Amino acid sequence: MPTIDLQDLHDPAHASFLRDYTSLRDVQLRTRREPAEGLFLAESAEVIRRALEAGYVPRSFLLSPHRHAELADVLPADVPVFVAPPAAVEELTGVDLHRGALGSFVRPAPRTVEDLLAALPPGPARLVVLEDVADATNVGAVVRSVAAFGVDGVVVSPRCADPLYRRAVRVSMGTVLHLPWARARSWPGDLDLLRGAGFTVAALALSDDSVALGEFEVPERLAFLLGTEGDGLSRRALAAADVVVRIPMDPRVDSLNVAAAGAVALWETRRA
Amino acid sequence: MPTIDLQDLHDPAHASFLRDYTSLRDVQLRTRREPAEGLFLAESAEVIRRALEAGYVPRSFLLSPHRHAELADVLPADVPVFVAPPAAVEELTGVDLHRGALGSFVRPAPRTVEDLLAALPPGPARLVVLEDVADATNVGAVVRSVAAFGVDGVVVSPRCADPLYRRAVRVSMGTVLHLPWARARSWPGDLDLLRGAGFTVAALALSDDSVALGEFEVPERLAFLLGTEGDGLSRRALAAADVVVRIPMDPRVDSLNVAAAGAVALWETRRA
Repeated sequence: MPTIDLQDLHDPAHASFLRDYTSLRDVQLRTRREPAEGLFLAESAEVIRRALEAGYVPRSFLLSPHRHAELADVLPADVPVFVAPPAAVEELTGVDLHRGALGSFVRPAPRTVEDLLAALPPGPARLVVLEDVADATNVGAVVRSVAAFGVDGVVVSPRCADPLYRRAVRVSMGTVLHLPWARARSWPGDLDLLRGAGFTVAALALSDDSVALGEFEVPERLAFLLGTEGDGLSRRALAAADVVVRIPMDPRVDSLNVAAAGAVALWETRRA
Repeated sequence: MPTIDLQDLHDPAHASFLRDYTSLRDVQLRTRREPAEGLFLAESAEVIRRALEAGYVPRSFLLSPHRHAELADVLPADVPVFVAPPAAVEELTGVDLHRGALGSFVRPAPRTVEDLLAALPPGPARLVVLEDVADATNVGAVVRSVAAFGVDGVVVSPRCADPLYRRAVRVSMGTVLHLPWARARSWPGDLDLLRGAGFTVAALALSDDSVALGEFEVPERLAFLLGTEGDGLSRRALAAADVVVRIPMDPRVDSLNVAAAGAVALWETRRA
């Protein structure tokens, strides 16, 4: 299918493709729709490039004329490329996409925690587990640190924001596209699967019976459990952890941003 | 002035107060207006509470009925409190403020780098310097880590986002309200002032002639220089630093989020 100069947003010939790009302002709707419809969105020329390099299958592209020229060398010939001025893109999507580039890609089949564990080599490994982190920006920022510090995979709780949501992918700088991750089905029950695979589950929290991060003896297989921005980890998740690790801080500040806390914990427990 | 049940958004009697809350969607406009008009906004009941505790002077409040009840114990009697349903607040401000609470406060007089340095005690000290970080969320997240790890102050470059912008204050969890910070007037010239006060300026970047963070010998007075999200530090700022420190990471990931990088650097160089 060739490049389509998008003059008429309502041309029925394009409706099945353009549907991928509607209602982008409505995060809740998109969060339901994207997994159900089997897609995720890559935003910005750089993330589109990374998704194609990583082998993800595109459904279509929606590009400004400028970005179209920039991406010409990587766009596959058999996928529709809609080229439209920014005003038309904003009318279709409901948002001002100043990056001028969206790609809709086939969402990979969900991975279970069992799948994730089965794919890990034996021996030293680190995982990050996110409980109910609601803000996709934070999920993306954690994923970026996870990739930077060579973590082997991520598990998200059933109610955690989608790591493949547009903003999470962008904030992760596309690193989520290379990262093994799974969504837990039973919570906090699936933490038992980690323990069964030899992982020590270390909850990151401030509590009286915690070990200071600098004094924490790093186990061979370590799963760091991080909680939501507002309320921290749930009591059930804390109870399901093997150990609680705290990042010592000024007592007038009761917590770090989850991405900052995750980065500090991963830095301190890196393998030299 | 009593509590005002805000029925008519266009009542001229309230115009001079309500002007503080208009056009909140327009970040660029607000960024110009707020310093020029001598105000900053505290969003959420918690941040309002912290601002009042810290002694900032309120100009007025705009609250949902629910938040009004919640804040009743701390609202001063001589400051107008506008109480309005969410729809009216959205019409006035242009945004959906689901936290239901805004306070407009008198912005403190700007501090120069000289002021900031003069107020520091002699001996060990740490500063964070931000160059051109454009995203207020990132500024707020860095400030939260700065407060958590007991840093003595922050310097922002002339083009860095405003630490008192509404979102920065909120993301910092209000910690910016207790933090000594200054905006540089000459850039990167003001880094010389830090050096003159005995600080080693350490740029955080990936470069060939850098020292790995884990091997960096922490000077008694340390100023960490962090760059913008996209392009990193400018060449001039890098050249003006005394040393370049890198956070070793997977070579396929070229950087961390600035808040994550800052947290890791501050953690590693903490004083035990």
